[in-house]
Formats: sequence, C-alpha cells, structure tokens
Amino acid sequence: MAQNIYDDRVFFAGYTTLPRSVRGLDGAPEWPAVRAQLPDLAGKSVLDLGCGFGWFARWARAQGAAHVLGLDLSENMIGRARLNTHDAGIEYRIADLERVEFPPSSVDLAYSSLALHYIEDFERLVRSVYHALRPGGRFVFTIEHPIYMASRKPGWRTDQEGRKTWPVDAYALEGPRKTNWFADGVIKYHRRIGTTLNMLIGVGLEIRHVEEFAPTPDQIAAMRDLAEELERPMMLIVAAQR
Amino acid sequence: MAQNIYDDRVFFAGYTTLPRSVRGLDGAPEWPAVRAQLPDLAGKSVLDLGCGFGWFARWARAQGAAHVLGLDLSENMIGRARLNTHDAGIEYRIADLERVEFPPSSVDLAYSSLALHYIEDFERLVRSVYHALRPGGRFVFTIEHPIYMASRKPGWRTDQEGRKTWPVDAYALEGPRKTNWFADGVIKYHRRIGTTLNMLIGVGLEIRHVEEFAPTPDQIAAMRDLAEELERPMMLIVAAQR
Repeated sequence: MAQNIYDDRVFFAGYTTLPRSVRGLDGAPEWPAVRAQLPDLAGKSVLDLGCGFGWFARWARAQGAAHVLGLDLSENMIGRARLNTHDAGIEYRIADLERVEFPPSSVDLAYSSLALHYIEDFERLVRSVYHALRPGGRFVFTIEHPIYMASRKPGWRTDQEGRKTWPVDAYALEGPRKTNWFADGVIKYHRRIGTTLNMLIGVGLEIRHVEEFAPTPDQIAAMRDLAEELERPMMLIVAAQR
Repeated sequence: MAQNIYDDRVFFAGYTTLPRSVRGLDGAPEWPAVRAQLPDLAGKSVLDLGCGFGWFARWARAQGAAHVLGLDLSENMIGRARLNTHDAGIEYRIADLERVEFPPSSVDLAYSSLALHYIEDFERLVRSVYHALRPGGRFVFTIEHPIYMASRKPGWRTDQEGRKTWPVDAYALEGPRKTNWFADGVIKYHRRIGTTLNMLIGVGLEIRHVEEFAPTPDQIAAMRDLAEELERPMMLIVAAQR
C-alpha cells in the first residue's frame, strides 16, 4: 500500500496552506502548460488519479465532461473534495493507486497532478491506465522532475560566484527517496525520465508531449520566486495517447 | 555553419587518444545500449550523421547494410575514415549538418553518435531526417545529456560528506554552452530533454525509446571510473521511428 502521508495531521495542515490548495488550479504555475495538453472534454469520461480537493474534477465538469471519477488514498482529501462538490457527475473514491483497476476502454482522459511520484509500481499503474483508456484517449500527468528528486541531499547550493545550483547525484539509482516536506519521512520514488517514458511506450502508449516546466517571463514578473525554476526543473509534464 | 572544432589541430590530437577513437565502437561504454536500439540492417540503407572515423559505417556494412553514407564536417575525420575503409558500399562526404538535405524516403536508419549537441538548428535537421527516412525507418542517436550540459560551470562538486554531486543550473535557458574539451571554446547547444523529444514528435516521428545511459555492474567492475556515471547521466540515447 502506498504511504498515506496526506492523512498525517501535521502534513495535511501544512499542505492545505499551499497556493494550489487555497486557490486551486490557478494557484499552480504549471497549470497553463498542463491545460494546453488536455483534449476537449465535452461529453468525455475523466479519471483523476490523486484528485486531492477535487479542483480538477470540478474544472473538468465545467468544461463539459460527462463524468469525472476522482481517486485519492487520503480520507482527508476525499472528505474535503466531497464537501466542496455539489455535482452528481463527479464521484470521489478512496483508492490505493498501487492496486486500483479500472473497467476497460471506459476513459477518455486519465489525469494526474503531482501524485505518481508517490507510486512505487508505476508500470503496473500505467498498464491499468492503458486498458482503462479508450483508443485515442489521453493520459496527461505531472510528476516531480527526476532532476529535482534524484539527489541524496536535494536542495540549493551556492557556488563560489554566489550562483545557485542544484545537485544531481544517484540519478541512475532509482527507487525510494525519503524527504521532509511538511512532515518527516515522506517517501517518493525516483525514476529517470527515460524509465518513465519507456514504461508508457512499453504498454502501448504513444508519447505526445514532454515538458520540463519553466515559468514564463510574465509569471516571473508576477512572482519573483519563480525565477529559480529556470535553474532546475521541479516538474515534468507528460502527455501520452492510446 | 557549425563550428568545425574537429579540424582544430590541438582538439583533433586530443580526440584521437580517446578509447572510442582508438578502439571504435567497443571503446564506447554506451555502445551495447545503442546497439540494442538498432534495427536489423541486412540490405538496408544507412545514414551516419557525424561519422567520424567511420567505425559505425564499417560495422553497419558488416551487419549486411546495402549502403552507408557517412557525413562529417571535419576533413580530418573524413580523411581518416576514407583511409581506413576499403568498401564500395560506404560513401563519406564532408557536409554541414546545419544545412544538409537528403533525398526523400531513401534511408532505413539514420544514426548519429554524440554529434547533434553541436547543432544549433536541431529542428531543421530533424525535419530533414524525417523526410529522408522511409516509412518505418528509424532515427537512433546519442547526444550529451542536458543534465551534463546545462550548468554555467559544469563539473563535479564535493559536498560536506565528501560525496560527488553534479551541478544543474540554467536548465531552462537553452542555447550555446562554451566549454573547454581538448581545446578552448568548444560550442555545444543545450536543449532540455523535452525540447529534443517534442521536436521529434512535432515533425511526425514516434518516440520508441529514451535512455539515460548508465553503465552495467559488469562495466563498472571492468572500469571503475564508470561508477560516476551512476551519479549523473552524461549521455542520452533516443530511438524514434517514422
């Protein structure tokens, strides 16, 4: 079973303060880039893997999606999502993405935001998603970028000229990485970009887009802290198609 | 026109001492991984972009390729390749990969080893390769990994615990990187993995494999220095298909 850090009281209290928790999709700087990879949702069936508070589910319905199924391991998240949603076209379910299976050829878009780096058996999940997708259906997801995750001691370093650099080490050593983020001992799974993409290709998906998110000049002007995202990528956006 | 560093006397003298220059394909640790991406070459037409001394061209013919065209900007390289080759099925030509065009649908395999990071207009070249390929034809290439190239000051750092890390900065700032490698002022072009892959997808190629080369345990046992390649990837292997 996947680690359920979102039901840790301290973690959850911290997580709810993030801009993306408070403001939803518009609080996430990568959202415009992710949105550009989404198909037209009118009348479509949507699956949200790691749905959190349901921000995406509600947005997808506002775009005309016929049905959205949001899955999350966290009772906290699902509880909050249900509280915030009044829509019979959206269903939320507590589910472990390490084990979940879906009805075949039932989904037009499988979406996931910053959840799949918590999954140890990514290949199993990808195979499940492949079978869940209808032919032509899309799988669009974001994960933490492996450059961001690889190091034994991730975090900015300052070089002799006072410039920030990000350390990469252990890049080829895939597997768990324990970090402290709102709570101690949060476990993420590092995979190289190649490994992630080859698993998608291996199950039969076609890679349509790979983006290492970087903020636009306008975004940096509005939020100066985002400039450091030009130095090293924090997020990877992938779009694949059955 | 691309920088012609291989015709710099000092650079060339240094380059010829590399294991891959002396021993050919078997002197390159990534070769088994690259070879695994190559199609059966019997009767096929092969294009080698940045053919160097012609090691790959001769190997391809030994595998039964009907014809190999090797291109390189460097007179030094082409001269040496011709000296070492006695085979009417191999043709070497001096050519600038920034400008070269090919006959349409004439090639079964376009191959390139560690040359395309010297190319500024990668998209133009990729479009040329796409049109040169027959349907089903493959484009298999290696380039320096963007993790290796991105930093303003690439090179190992040692952290407080004495562990080696590799700095990443300026990752989203694509463009020229000036380095000193056998000669001063060697110009390479940094592109993110996403940019490289999206250019392939954009012209109509399908991504078949993406590999961030890491040595095997056997390779490390035979050559201890290779262990550092587990810390950060130096090379990216890509296979795409028309």
